[in-house]
Amino acid sequence: MVIIFKAGTTSQIVAEILETLTSHNLSAFLIHDKTNMIIGVQGDHKIISQLLNDHPAIEKIKSISTSYQLVSRDAIPENTKVSVGKVVVGDKKVIVIGGPCAIESREQLFETATAVKEAGAHGLRGGAFKSRTSPYYFQGLGVAGLKLLHEVSQALDMPFVSEVIEADDVAVMARFATALQVGTRNMQNYRLLKELGRVKKPVLLKRGMSATIEEFLLAAEYIISEGNPNVILCERGIRTFEPTTRNTLDLAAVPYLKMHSHLPVIVDPSHGTGMSELVIPMSKAAIACGADGLLIEVHHHPKEALSDGRQSLNPQQFARLMNEIEPFVAAAGREL
Amino acid sequence: MVIIFKAGTTSQIVAEILETLTSHNLSAFLIHDKTNMIIGVQGDHKIISQLLNDHPAIEKIKSISTSYQLVSRDAIPENTKVSVGKVVVGDKKVIVIGGPCAIESREQLFETATAVKEAGAHGLRGGAFKSRTSPYYFQGLGVAGLKLLHEVSQALDMPFVSEVIEADDVAVMARFATALQVGTRNMQNYRLLKELGRVKKPVLLKRGMSATIEEFLLAAEYIISEGNPNVILCERGIRTFEPTTRNTLDLAAVPYLKMHSHLPVIVDPSHGTGMSELVIPMSKAAIACGADGLLIEVHHHPKEALSDGRQSLNPQQFARLMNEIEPFVAAAGREL
Amino acid sequence: MVIIFKAGTTSQIVAEILETLTSHNLSAFLIHDKTNMIIGVQGDHKIISQLLNDHPAIEKIKSISTSYQLVSRDAIPENTKVSVGKVVVGDKKVIVIGGPCAIESREQLFETATAVKEAGAHGLRGGAFKSRTSPYYFQGLGVAGLKLLHEVSQALDMPFVSEVIEADDVAVMARFATALQVGTRNMQNYRLLKELGRVKKPVLLKRGMSATIEEFLLAAEYIISEGNPNVILCERGIRTFEPTTRNTLDLAAVPYLKMHSHLPVIVDPSHGTGMSELVIPMSKAAIACGADGLLIEVHHHPKEALSDGRQSLNPQQFARLMNEIEPFVAAAGREL
Amino acid sequence: MVIIFKAGTTSQIVAEILETLTSHNLSAFLIHDKTNMIIGVQGDHKIISQLLNDHPAIEKIKSISTSYQLVSRDAIPENTKVSVGKVVVGDKKVIVIGGPCAIESREQLFETATAVKEAGAHGLRGGAFKSRTSPYYFQGLGVAGLKLLHEVSQALDMPFVSEVIEADDVAVMARFATALQVGTRNMQNYRLLKELGRVKKPVLLKRGMSATIEEFLLAAEYIISEGNPNVILCERGIRTFEPTTRNTLDLAAVPYLKMHSHLPVIVDPSHGTGMSELVIPMSKAAIACGADGLLIEVHHHPKEALSDGRQSLNPQQFARLMNEIEPFVAAAGREL
Repeated sequence: MVIIFKAGTTSQIVAEILETLTSHNLSAFLIHDKTNMIIGVQGDHKIISQLLNDHPAIEKIKSISTSYQLVSRDAIPENTKVSVGKVVVGDKKVIVIGGPCAIESREQLFETATAVKEAGAHGLRGGAFKSRTSPYYFQGLGVAGLKLLHEVSQALDMPFVSEVIEADDVAVMARFATALQVGTRNMQNYRLLKELGRVKKPVLLKRGMSATIEEFLLAAEYIISEGNPNVILCERGIRTFEPTTRNTLDLAAVPYLKMHSHLPVIVDPSHGTGMSELVIPMSKAAIACGADGLLIEVHHHPKEALSDGRQSLNPQQFARLMNEIEPFVAAAGREL
Repeated sequence: MVIIFKAGTTSQIVAEILETLTSHNLSAFLIHDKTNMIIGVQGDHKIISQLLNDHPAIEKIKSISTSYQLVSRDAIPENTKVSVGKVVVGDKKVIVIGGPCAIESREQLFETATAVKEAGAHGLRGGAFKSRTSPYYFQGLGVAGLKLLHEVSQALDMPFVSEVIEADDVAVMARFATALQVGTRNMQNYRLLKELGRVKKPVLLKRGMSATIEEFLLAAEYIISEGNPNVILCERGIRTFEPTTRNTLDLAAVPYLKMHSHLPVIVDPSHGTGMSELVIPMSKAAIACGADGLLIEVHHHPKEALSDGRQSLNPQQFARLMNEIEPFVAAAGREL
Repeated sequence: MVIIFKAGTTSQIVAEILETLTSHNLSAFLIHDKTNMIIGVQGDHKIISQLLNDHPAIEKIKSISTSYQLVSRDAIPENTKVSVGKVVVGDKKVIVIGGPCAIESREQLFETATAVKEAGAHGLRGGAFKSRTSPYYFQGLGVAGLKLLHEVSQALDMPFVSEVIEADDVAVMARFATALQVGTRNMQNYRLLKELGRVKKPVLLKRGMSATIEEFLLAAEYIISEGNPNVILCERGIRTFEPTTRNTLDLAAVPYLKMHSHLPVIVDPSHGTGMSELVIPMSKAAIACGADGLLIEVHHHPKEALSDGRQSLNPQQFARLMNEIEPFVAAAGREL
Repeated sequence: MVIIFKAGTTSQIVAEILETLTSHNLSAFLIHDKTNMIIGVQGDHKIISQLLNDHPAIEKIKSISTSYQLVSRDAIPENTKVSVGKVVVGDKKVIVIGGPCAIESREQLFETATAVKEAGAHGLRGGAFKSRTSPYYFQGLGVAGLKLLHEVSQALDMPFVSEVIEADDVAVMARFATALQVGTRNMQNYRLLKELGRVKKPVLLKRGMSATIEEFLLAAEYIISEGNPNVILCERGIRTFEPTTRNTLDLAAVPYLKMHSHLPVIVDPSHGTGMSELVIPMSKAAIACGADGLLIEVHHHPKEALSDGRQSLNPQQFARLMNEIEPFVAAAGREL
């Protein structure tokens, strides 16, 4: 259920109503702190109505029929725009974020980041803490990698996103990264999601590789219901019987999510296909069906990458991607 | 293995070589009967080379590393263009085929077909023989439906495609339909595929709902290796764990198929998603990633459809689809 | 809906009622032609009740809530017992059917069949017509193979089951084989199913590799609603993301099917796992959860098999299987 | 690669060799600290051989061909036996662990635990910290629930296992619980796995719902390579297209895991099917194919359960399970 306020309601009044609800042991959350103040609340519609009845500041109390509430477009009809540094995701611009899967060294990062920026990317991506299937695979540079990312990001004046793999790391990540990514294996790490709900940093939430769309939205609900509305959804492919591609990129999820949620949606065609030659066509397709952005793996020497080289573009291919998606961005009535 | 001939080789010489091969008990097939005469042959490379050695008409004998041979782009580098009546699939034009899932009556068909044509569709689709999960569901009008389709097709001067569900029906279908469709449940009905290989009618081959891309190409190989090169591949969604959409539309299969095969590829976003509101965005995405055409379910009154109403567009929505895909067709450097 | 008759009702009365129903354009089918005469009928409960009201031979008219009707245990509470020659499937005995995937030669078949019989198997299996993914794989010996099977079956006094891959072949198959198998790729070949419904031969229906349990039961319904109640269901593994095993053997389907249907259920652990070393443990598991029988691939020299050698037991392993399952058969309160 | 020592080698010598390896920057781990001292080591075989060459205590240096090493039966041929309090998992006895999905109250827990013990169960299960799809579902009693479990466990003299959902909680869980469970959503929470590798408590590792068998074994490798060899694998069903059952119980994984790993394997048919009526038949099947134990959800009033009531047995059904599995335990040559 959501409580929507009349235009001009002060935040003090909203805070009082929130207090009324929580003092009656109702689970209530404030979202969208500026223009659209809304309270999400769990509980019996009748009891809540009686409690708040006739409050002059309340526009309406609305039941949401889906299991997810605060992420629902029924609750908040307008698109949420998430600011990642100076970049806004979910607005007219299609945002492209590029960079290596894992940070390997200062040279690798600088070289790739510079190329990515020159090609026109809006943001940088890179993994410092890696979540790997085998304990014997490269696990990332850790805090050292994070600091490198921060340094490069400052030098190039580009925001960056990096994966956080545990609740304990949220604080250090939040200090350095512009946005925090939740990886596919952690989409249902609810402790981590709750911790991310308590910081105000933007969160890039990747869909679990075997998560349904409903579970994906409920994972976002975990973050938002803790108080952080800055969530970007990322479709990155699901696990199916098909062995040709690494995952099956579920692009139909993009328009579905845009219809049923107000959150921005971006697509990762690199993990979504696992094959560099499919990244450009699937980037075009993602934009055509309404994606707000792309997350692309770029590596200076894909064949020497310590992780996921098979799906990485080299800088020349990335520049080609930026060129080739342009007419599709325009066809979608958007800008690059 | 494929045998490629020099330009100017007469069909008589090719026939002689074919005869040489088959008289040595080698399984050999002629494909692409006009400009690019090619023989596909199974067997030991060395034996075949010795047999044909130094024949002046042979350009080269080429081994194909994949399990599929004749459908492979390694065998035939140029795009195959399949003529469906006056319409060519696999050329510059993006082809849109629309119509009802099942033919229900003359009025329904005329009304829908006229609307589809007025909106700019190139071809008509409609099921006369239906393959249904339950014996108690509507099974189609059969030959009567087929004749209706033929009548409407003639009246509107539009080619049409209709599903054939058994080898025995190929002859009657071939007499009336412009192109014959193999449904998802029949993709591995090899008798049917072989029978279709023996007629010259174009075949629209739908991917099995749990077929891998390799199995899909091998199904096409069954048709082509019997002598019919006119195969159009159709991605229509695969079965996964995701319950939100009826199937998971595997759009990455489109560029993959275009890279590894010379056959045209179209997309069916109606069955691929099962939700009419996702058909337009996924049509755009299909075109953006390289599809040669679309197969769209249209029904005059979707809510009253005897089959698959939930995923059908009404004529107004179909007209909107034709308008909205236009800029994406242009962005792809193609025409509508 | 099913119409159940009182004990002692003559088949003439039942035939009259069937006539009444069909003369009113209702789709009605007679099943279980001896002790339990039952009519399955589609249509409005009220109309049917009025039509037949107070007929003294009718015990009750029962609505079945599932999409499948005649295969439902709600319709027929007792287990159906299917006779395959002298062997009864669905009774106290656990039936084991063994033999090669494909018939390759008289020696191979005789040798394997003799070994299988000596080890205690009740029936023989073998493919004459093969349904293969690639047109270049061995496609079976056809009618010649079928005749070999018939000859060996006579010589060893063992019933045999063989796959039928097209409606047109049903007649010839029915002349030679004791039971006709529908393969996984044909589970939704509805023409074939209907044709099998018109012969009285037992049908061994394999689950489609991506068929839900409901679709599996509806496929059986196709056969039974045409008049042939002699259907044996066979779980043979489904297609999932797991690459280790060839398929994922869905053993939970066995007790589910036994609860919701009156048909016998057997298990094929050879295709279900694709690994010979898993066949014995999964055979035990199948019996433990209620399977009425096993279908096992046996080959004299698995490594030289023209088809599916990786999953075949050799005769020694098959003899071990027969020994090792014995205590589990006893634990299940059954006999071998 | 694993280094196997001769019988009688002292732990001091092993420690010296471990020191030699790690001082050369090789990643090396000691496992099986009593009778079978083994060192797992990553790196170049030749370098390691040179480094240790001719050391008189070394029996052999063995390469393991799979991605997983220390969990492999190639590395350690004998079954690992894991002690959970007085109960040993992986020995002759088939171990049954029963209890509620979530701890709801002292009465519920006492009543259910007493019934479970009386019926003959060896261990108790119960969730204090719950990992739930929606933030609005019951999240468990937390530490209070854990203390209740501890109290009941002491009172009834039964070991208990409970889920740990974050690395931070490992310490508190290890203080109270006899064994720590990793839930399906956390199978790839590598930080949690590493933390569990540093305590000596037994770990019950559930397979991720979309994890391959190889990924499952690599998750166990994470724990063991940190020094804790006490890992019990638990098959609990995988996510497939089949909607009838909650998950598809992949029982073939049981014999596969037993063949390729030395770790004990138990089965959870409650989550594996999601339907209480399938729990008994699938328990029998699990034992028949080699499972070392069962994990069963039991609730005093399943219909009122705050979590997963649909799949819980009531105490009478659980007692029936214990009776009915007995002949299958005997058939498997084991004890209950």
